[in-house]
Amino acid sequence: MFLKNCWYVAAWDHEVLADTLLSRTLLGNSVLLYRTEDGKPVAMDNRCCHRHAPLHMGRKEGDCVRCMYHGLKYDASGRCVEVPGQDVIPPKLKQRVYPTVQCRRWIWIWMGDPEKADESLIPDTFSMQHPEWRWSPSYLLYKANYLYICDNLLDFSHLSYVHEKTLGGSPNIAEARPEVTRLPTGVRVNRPVRGTVPAPYHGRLGSFPGKVNRWFHYDFIVPGILLLHSGLKSADNAEDDFTGALSFHSCQAVTPETESSTHYFFMLAHSFRIDDPVVTESVTQSQRAAFIEDKIMIEAQQQMIDTSSAQPMVPLASDLGLVQYRRVLHELLEAERSSETSGPERVMTP
Amino acid sequence: MFLKNCWYVAAWDHEVLADTLLSRTLLGNSVLLYRTEDGKPVAMDNRCCHRHAPLHMGRKEGDCVRCMYHGLKYDASGRCVEVPGQDVIPPKLKQRVYPTVQCRRWIWIWMGDPEKADESLIPDTFSMQHPEWRWSPSYLLYKANYLYICDNLLDFSHLSYVHEKTLGGSPNIAEARPEVTRLPTGVRVNRPVRGTVPAPYHGRLGSFPGKVNRWFHYDFIVPGILLLHSGLKSADNAEDDFTGALSFHSCQAVTPETESSTHYFFMLAHSFRIDDPVVTESVTQSQRAAFIEDKIMIEAQQQMIDTSSAQPMVPLASDLGLVQYRRVLHELLEAERSSETSGPERVMTP
Amino acid sequence: MFLKNCWYVAAWDHEVLADTLLSRTLLGNSVLLYRTEDGKPVAMDNRCCHRHAPLHMGRKEGDCVRCMYHGLKYDASGRCVEVPGQDVIPPKLKQRVYPTVQCRRWIWIWMGDPEKADESLIPDTFSMQHPEWRWSPSYLLYKANYLYICDNLLDFSHLSYVHEKTLGGSPNIAEARPEVTRLPTGVRVNRPVRGTVPAPYHGRLGSFPGKVNRWFHYDFIVPGILLLHSGLKSADNAEDDFTGALSFHSCQAVTPETESSTHYFFMLAHSFRIDDPVVTESVTQSQRAAFIEDKIMIEAQQQMIDTSSAQPMVPLASDLGLVQYRRVLHELLEAERSSETSGPERVMTP
Repeated sequence: MFLKNCWYVAAWDHEVLADTLLSRTLLGNSVLLYRTEDGKPVAMDNRCCHRHAPLHMGRKEGDCVRCMYHGLKYDASGRCVEVPGQDVIPPKLKQRVYPTVQCRRWIWIWMGDPEKADESLIPDTFSMQHPEWRWSPSYLLYKANYLYICDNLLDFSHLSYVHEKTLGGSPNIAEARPEVTRLPTGVRVNRPVRGTVPAPYHGRLGSFPGKVNRWFHYDFIVPGILLLHSGLKSADNAEDDFTGALSFHSCQAVTPETESSTHYFFMLAHSFRIDDPVVTESVTQSQRAAFIEDKIMIEAQQQMIDTSSAQPMVPLASDLGLVQYRRVLHELLEAERSSETSGPERVMTP
Repeated sequence: MFLKNCWYVAAWDHEVLADTLLSRTLLGNSVLLYRTEDGKPVAMDNRCCHRHAPLHMGRKEGDCVRCMYHGLKYDASGRCVEVPGQDVIPPKLKQRVYPTVQCRRWIWIWMGDPEKADESLIPDTFSMQHPEWRWSPSYLLYKANYLYICDNLLDFSHLSYVHEKTLGGSPNIAEARPEVTRLPTGVRVNRPVRGTVPAPYHGRLGSFPGKVNRWFHYDFIVPGILLLHSGLKSADNAEDDFTGALSFHSCQAVTPETESSTHYFFMLAHSFRIDDPVVTESVTQSQRAAFIEDKIMIEAQQQMIDTSSAQPMVPLASDLGLVQYRRVLHELLEAERSSETSGPERVMTP
Repeated sequence: MFLKNCWYVAAWDHEVLADTLLSRTLLGNSVLLYRTEDGKPVAMDNRCCHRHAPLHMGRKEGDCVRCMYHGLKYDASGRCVEVPGQDVIPPKLKQRVYPTVQCRRWIWIWMGDPEKADESLIPDTFSMQHPEWRWSPSYLLYKANYLYICDNLLDFSHLSYVHEKTLGGSPNIAEARPEVTRLPTGVRVNRPVRGTVPAPYHGRLGSFPGKVNRWFHYDFIVPGILLLHSGLKSADNAEDDFTGALSFHSCQAVTPETESSTHYFFMLAHSFRIDDPVVTESVTQSQRAAFIEDKIMIEAQQQMIDTSSAQPMVPLASDLGLVQYRRVLHELLEAERSSETSGPERVMTP
């Protein structure tokens, strides 16, 4: 079961160009993504209501899309505006259209009650559009339930093991105790790691002859959005002396494709040496390499869960973040479910 | 559920040569097809009744087939005639044999009550064996339920869209209103298209500088047999003036492999320039290219139906043919079901 | 359902080297196989009890294994000995460990009640470690339930057909009547074949100008262990004259991977020309080629059973061995099931 009344990332902006008819399964629904002539993104049920042919195999005609099985044409509001060989168009011939917003470089979709689609709820991915930050976009499709990816992002102790040779570098990250704070729709995690070594990938970006302090400070909010500040500086410098420090900001989003597969959109921005494209490329490739390490581990975990008999997991102190997040998600799902069963007409009942 | 008391196409004649042991799944049953020494086709359960090994991995010995797991030998009537190391052959050792007829170039099989297998019910595929027609045989295996292929064949409006650049050529085909007549075991469709343009593939076969009239006239009968006359002539000529006209006849058969896959046997014969093999090749390749367009669309439709939540389709005027055909099929299935449950012994019950 | 209180072959010894972390699914359970520093094999649940990540993707550290997701470390008894960032280790953090024994070249595992794991029950595979025998190890993974492989090994009549051109050579093997004797945990089969021809593969090993006598004498015991003496000698020689005879001994083991797949470990030892490695290679390759013939047939049989409607098989006289074996297995399974439901506390019930 997925949370519906929230903004999911549906695509990177460059995945939906002027002529694109993109088919993407989101929360188990096949969705057609395209743009109107003025560039506004449209998200529509991809299944033609006539004979269930997929519209992404159709043809874009102005702001409309034509199904290329029997020629039905729909406008950007989902209304059928042409049926070849038939003058009267039954009102039932209508595709569901989802509220969609392009905000910075992500196309966001609201798959719940359209009345509740409030754009001000879209998380702030400021580093995607900021003169002081540089980055490149990335995407992976996971063969795993989205919650196992959320779990991973909520406990950075795995950096010491999964990413030992990339983002990690020592057991210190796992040994550090994070501070976990509950937010209205997520959790905030603060994990300072003091007196440690740089991560292997830092060696390509700066020079740290002595010990360093590293920091990871992030919000993880429903339905699976990570907004992370991280970095490192020399441990010898005073607290407020950032000489030679490296600062990063990362936006990441997990969007369920189905119960067993997940879209993963991510980037890692840097605010140092922003005029050197080689640095941007190095940062991006380091993140991608590391996230493929996660993918291999999490898909193996998923396969283990799928093929072995159900058994409870044993929780540890380091699971605090993910336990908290699942609690938030559970409460929101419960609230959504109860609001679905008791509508306004229920209130009238004595 | 499949109709059983009817003739299905099991194979093209050239698929079963003198030494062939062909395994083909028909209506969910694995069937062995081979020929006796005098060329008569035999269709037998492919599953050896002893340990369920497949007979097509066996050895043809005269009119018999020997299972090459433990050596049991069956004659063309399905009777076991040899058990190595055992003198007495239990009468239970018998393979089910299906009535089979080669008629013109198709091998037909009757998978219902053998008593009812009347050869005179086999549809007339005259153009397969006629001095005035030329053609080549084709075959495709669909990953789709056979009914979605029947639907496709019962509404030629799709020619304007799926086959826009091959068999279609303009929206006029979709705009034309067909005449649909019910037949005892199918429907007859007549779709004249007047004052239109030739199809793209006609350009390789004849010259039509002005407008043309096209015609499609066919019977579609259970369990999925299409017999189609089609063609085009200059719209400037009188009704009975066929100078420069191109005439085609097509025989097509869909046979369920399983609930989710279908055999599709087809050909397109031409009666003009019959001494030019390049024309035959061109006509055949045009049909194959177009039928691969259908396959891509219908398999995508099937996949959409499989992966999305059940939802009713919205019927249009153009669905008249397929609605009628499904009604015919439904009635025949109901009749077959009720005759299965109420046999003669039932009639005796007071 | 699998028998649990018995020794299964888990691996060839060379599959688990000093640094190996081998993941192998046995009876539906993902098992980690490795060796302690002193070479003792360890078999442990491969699923980390914390978040179900697979331990075989971890790191061997001395006698321990560390999960490389979050860094938990387990010793060879399955006890968790380290949790990064946490001082107290909950006693629930424990991996199930299975009794394991290396005996000759096979690593045996006991997946039932550890109290009952009696090493003296391990079958005697003497030829694996004997100065008078030579051989090479082989392995196949079947896409079939293990019982169909057992069936195959319990009725050598298939040698005449499946292995006509390899291990067979004539219908005489199928025609010979075997003697089948029940053992406490299996069956003994004696199948002498007199006055026959050598098998095709014998032609590369010896010279038999006239008729020969062949013998097959074996025990097949739970959970699927074959111990086979076979060979051939000139039919002209006296019963006790083994001049020019070829003697073989084969050890084979089937171990269920899942309900639909099976590990198959096997070897064929020869006691003639033991100093000629070309002979060992020829014997081994002949067996492998023949066992691939079995695999093709049995997987086809399994597929036929999977895809066709359930129907009883028709038993023959030649099925005596496999019917007897299945009866033994059924009785042992029943006994195991009833002992599971009635523990000591049941005995107390009046």
